[in-house]
Parts: sequence; structure tokens; C-alpha cells
Amino acid sequence: MFVLGIDPGLSRCGYGVVEQLGAAGTQRARTEAVALGVVRTDPEQPHAARLAVQMAELQALISEFRPSVVAVERVFFQVNARTAIGVAQVAGLAMAVAAAAGLEVAEYTPTQIKQAVAGWGGADKDQMKRMVGQLLALPGPPEPADAADAAAVALCHLSQAPWGRATPPARARVLLPAAGTAAPPT
Amino acid sequence: MFVLGIDPGLSRCGYGVVEQLGAAGTQRARTEAVALGVVRTDPEQPHAARLAVQMAELQALISEFRPSVVAVERVFFQVNARTAIGVAQVAGLAMAVAAAAGLEVAEYTPTQIKQAVAGWGGADKDQMKRMVGQLLALPGPPEPADAADAAAVALCHLSQAPWGRATPPARARVLLPAAGTAAPPT
Repeated sequence: MFVLGIDPGLSRCGYGVVEQLGAAGTQRARTEAVALGVVRTDPEQPHAARLAVQMAELQALISEFRPSVVAVERVFFQVNARTAIGVAQVAGLAMAVAAAAGLEVAEYTPTQIKQAVAGWGGADKDQMKRMVGQLLALPGPPEPADAADAAAVALCHLSQAPWGRATPPARARVLLPAAGTAAPPT
Repeated sequence: MFVLGIDPGLSRCGYGVVEQLGAAGTQRARTEAVALGVVRTDPEQPHAARLAVQMAELQALISEFRPSVVAVERVFFQVNARTAIGVAQVAGLAMAVAAAAGLEVAEYTPTQIKQAVAGWGGADKDQMKRMVGQLLALPGPPEPADAADAAAVALCHLSQAPWGRATPPARARVLLPAAGTAAPPT
């Protein structure tokens, strides 16, 4: 399955399409980067035009990669109110476009993302980038930072989702006898 | 021309389609309500699904009424941060959808809207509703409040726009002699 992670922003919106490969919970389970990038908009352009660019690119990513889930970093307002409006608006566009396409939408706080990817909620930018690089088996930490952040949101979703924990490995299920069928001799 | 005014909100998004009739600046100039209403979403639904409903309704309003301009009340963050995120996101959807449809987008502050419609920036809700009712020649103040607020945003745009002030009445232009032509005897 593909997860599209979004690190929302008006000037720079990071995206990361991550694929879960192998049966979850098995040694073969791994995650792979399918596409990482950043959609930039020109600060000289009108606000509405920049939002329209971000909306169109989000729609294009969904059409191209057909993810099952769009995972978005949750927005807070304690930082810079001016920047926060653009961040909230692009997060809203991502959620609206995903829900309109019938996709599952998940939101994660920065602390949840850091805990899931680096093991603790206080991880700094460099630690996060290194961990994203390792989890996606990239040759080094991904650049730019917004793309790495978006991939981290997708990895967070894959680590939190129930199939990552509750689903038993596929092999175990094959060995279970079907109802009303005698178990084959082993 | 039609102006679609938007009073953004996630639970309730007010809209008002206002038409400018008659030559601007003349005694025949008047404004008329074409459609006033509120799009509500269910607070029990997931956030992304509610955003998708607001986006779809905004797109439907634009398709149905084909306004030239979408005018949106500008978002601030001093009030309630939790509500403000939804307000900012629906304002962002309105601007993105309008810009994607090739429409002009304008934003006005609450003070600009009050000044334009009621004559002063300190006007209260009831004064605003009464003035919207008068300017649109309605039998009484429009209800609900969100629809009246949205109509006020559209009326604000019509009062601010250059054709409302700079364009001389059509008759006056007809009387001006063309360049190189002697003025007719009067």
C-alpha cells in the first residue's frame, strides 16, 4: 500500500509517497520511497493563486500515485500566526482533496511523528532526517528537509496503523485449518 | 456582474451571491440578492470529510452562479485557535477553488466590511443585518446571520471595486466630444 505523507506549507509543501512492502510484522516488511519532493509557490503571486497551485499539485499526486491514505502533519498555532494561516490552509486542502477522492485521511502531531520515526518525541531535525534515510534505505538523509518531513509523516502512519501490529504474518494464517476441514498431517 | 461573498467556517459557511444592476454610480445602480444561504457540516463527521463537503459546495456555487469575483472575509487568529483553524481552512478552500476556476479573489477585513456596509467599523451584528437587508431591498434583515455576513462581504467588494467610484455614469461619457471632433452646439 502507498501512503502519501504531507508536510503542509504555502511556500513549500513537502510530500512523500511511501510504500509498505512485504507482510507487515515479518522480517520481510520494509518501507520504500516511491516519490519525495516539495511543491513551491512564488511569494510574489497572490495568496489565492498560490493555494490553487498547491491544490492542483495535491490532486496530481493523488491521481498519479493512487495512495490508500493521505497522512498530514497536524497544525498548531503557537508559532507564527502569519505563517500558520498558510500552513493550516494547505493542510485543509490536502485533507479536503483526499477525502473528496475517497481516501482515508490521518493527522499526526509533530511529537507522534518524532516518536514513531526516531523513537522519542524530542528528536531534532538531523536525527529525523537520518532515521528517514535509514527506514527508506536511501543512500543518505533525504533533501530537502520538507520532503524528509513529509516522508516521516507517512512512516509514522505506517507504524501506527493496525496492520503494522495486529495482523499476524501471512505464513501463520496459511497454516490455520479452514473451518470444518481437518488439519493436514505435518 | 455577480459577486459571491463568503463568510468562512467549518460548521457553518455563509454564502451570498449579489448582483450589481444598473450603471454603477448612477441612480439606477442597485444591488440584488441572487442567493443567500449557509452550508452546514456535521460536527460528528471527521474533519477531512467536513472540509470535502465545504469544498464541493463552494465548487457547486461557482458552477451554478458563475460569479466574476469571490470575496472572502479575512481570517485572524486572536479569537479561538481551535475554531480559527477551521475558518482559515474553509477560507483557503474558497480562495483555491475560485482561483482554480479563473475567478478574481478579494479578501476584506471585518472592519472594511463594516465600514463599507454600515458606514463605520464598529457596527454591531444587528446594524449590519439591517443594512444588508436595506441594500439588497429585502423585506427584512436576512437570516441566518452567516448568510447576512456573507452578503455583506459581497456588498463590501462592490463598494470598493473601482467601477463603483472611478467609472463615470454612461450618459456623461456619451456627451464628451471625441478627440479631434468639435463639440456639438448645445
